[in-house]
Amino acid sequence: MDTDTRRPLARLIRSSRIASLGTLRRGAPNVSMVAYLASADFACFWLRVSRLAWHTQDLAVDPRVALSICESDDGRSDPQTLARVTVRGDATVLLGDDAATQSLQLKWLERFPASAVTFELADFSFWRVAPRDARFVAGLGRTYNLSAAELARAAQESA
Amino acid sequence: MDTDTRRPLARLIRSSRIASLGTLRRGAPNVSMVAYLASADFACFWLRVSRLAWHTQDLAVDPRVALSICESDDGRSDPQTLARVTVRGDATVLLGDDAATQSLQLKWLERFPASAVTFELADFSFWRVAPRDARFVAGLGRTYNLSAAELARAAQESA
Repeated sequence: MDTDTRRPLARLIRSSRIASLGTLRRGAPNVSMVAYLASADFACFWLRVSRLAWHTQDLAVDPRVALSICESDDGRSDPQTLARVTVRGDATVLLGDDAATQSLQLKWLERFPASAVTFELADFSFWRVAPRDARFVAGLGRTYNLSAAELARAAQESA
Repeated sequence: MDTDTRRPLARLIRSSRIASLGTLRRGAPNVSMVAYLASADFACFWLRVSRLAWHTQDLAVDPRVALSICESDDGRSDPQTLARVTVRGDATVLLGDDAATQSLQLKWLERFPASAVTFELADFSFWRVAPRDARFVAGLGRTYNLSAAELARAAQESA
């Protein structure tokens, strides 16, 4: 995957705010919309979810997830040309309130100001999705399978 | 769920063209973007996919799916207020070329003119997702669990 492909991948991940989170629910697929924030090096995809939500209950049972980020449908003739990436990995809850978590909280609030209320509710936590691999569809017939290391290389592209 | 909730659900399903398809891939969650078309009564969600695609390989092994349709992110302050619905059910491939399939093909081409080429390729087929249940998030904290029958009631709302 060359720079001309890594750049739109990095742009897609950085410019989007919502993703479709695939989890296992009693052994069957479940998909929910979540807000996300990627770390600068694409080694972490942060979620902030309530333990009352189905997907959080799912994560507590099985950490395996797929996180799909898709370009918004702009009404173009062929929606199959929309760029999208699916990151697969494991999710772990972030407990505690150390400096790293406080720094994440600031970044999260900058991205999602309306989520301030979730920091006053006991049922919300950050979860970290650590990518195992990714699959980037840059457009029709342009599919790339990436390792976590290759995903990290895309993060080195300037914004 | 009253008319004021069923109507935006019907509008979301009818106005969107793409969905996030959750499947099982070697026992783990997979999510891919797919184009879809809902039947007028919301008893069928049609997909047209290539057997070369990962998600189609997944469906051939395990028919259980989750199909998530989400309002486009319009940059609003709080993305958690975006409306979205997840339909869960089973997918079955549609083989043959009877009158019903030909009628579906016409509707599909009307919705997705650029997909004409897929009707000349042997690896593409229609798949039908039959809803078992659905989960509609009309906005922040407004979540409704629906049976397939309740989903069908939403389809009775005028477009």
